[in-house]
Amino acid sequence: MRFRIISVGKIREPFYDQGIKEYLKRLKPYTNIELLDGLEEKTNPQAGLAEIAKCRQKEGRKIMDLMGRDEIAVVFDIQGEMLSSAKWANYIEQLNGRSSSRINMIIGGAFGLDERVKQRAERKISFSPMTFPHQMAVLMLTEQIYRSFKIIRREPYHK
Amino acid sequence: MRFRIISVGKIREPFYDQGIKEYLKRLKPYTNIELLDGLEEKTNPQAGLAEIAKCRQKEGRKIMDLMGRDEIAVVFDIQGEMLSSAKWANYIEQLNGRSSSRINMIIGGAFGLDERVKQRAERKISFSPMTFPHQMAVLMLTEQIYRSFKIIRREPYHK
Repeated sequence: MRFRIISVGKIREPFYDQGIKEYLKRLKPYTNIELLDGLEEKTNPQAGLAEIAKCRQKEGRKIMDLMGRDEIAVVFDIQGEMLSSAKWANYIEQLNGRSSSRINMIIGGAFGLDERVKQRAERKISFSPMTFPHQMAVLMLTEQIYRSFKIIRREPYHK
Repeated sequence: MRFRIISVGKIREPFYDQGIKEYLKRLKPYTNIELLDGLEEKTNPQAGLAEIAKCRQKEGRKIMDLMGRDEIAVVFDIQGEMLSSAKWANYIEQLNGRSSSRINMIIGGAFGLDERVKQRAERKISFSPMTFPHQMAVLMLTEQIYRSFKIIRREPYHK
């Protein structure tokens, strides 16, 4: 099964970038996974709500266009359900056995995620009731996918 | 008010180290904050439960010895209560106004935290029902303290 993390926001900070690359590298022996980031629409900092909604909609269209019909979408949203790492690993194991061509794990940017994308997702998951930067969310996600494979394979988690 | 983050585990990974230093740097204009890490007791990887409990106890003693009587302790524990970033910022604001000489935010290592330290804490807080590495927890904590000051001062959170 192929996994793709779609991050609307660009990974800009060098330390987040290095951390995400590190977990993706550690995941290499376990699965096929890639990151696609930087789909964000540009707007000026004084943009009103209508302008922001338009940007979010455009970003949503880009995400929808990236996914084939048989692909699975999972979104990360502060309003989503929270899971333990063990339950999350069960879900990853289940996803891994499905016959879809790809699983997309989607993290919104500064404007949040378009309603259409949320509707398309089979599950909405939250890491925390706390708000974290999108770059931190991508780091958390890569780490939790790596942890899942360690749990599934019953291997010790060293670092 | 002075804040001190006590991380039993050492911050080893360069990307976590850089990220934590970046948030501590951003916090400079807002508060007095320092990180103390690497209090862990060494044991062999085949250590049994009794051996691990002894290490945890020794780590606990070191933490207790670090804190003066009038200092405040807050521990981070997966069993703790979860808060939104807004409620967490309220708590930081409240702590900031207290007459204690220091606030210690304590994150356990591979063996977890000693019961004595948990008892000493006025609050046990959890970031997520998911298990994250202690280094990630320290990064999350520095980011959430930085976010709190941005919320308290009603300043925009840029990055």
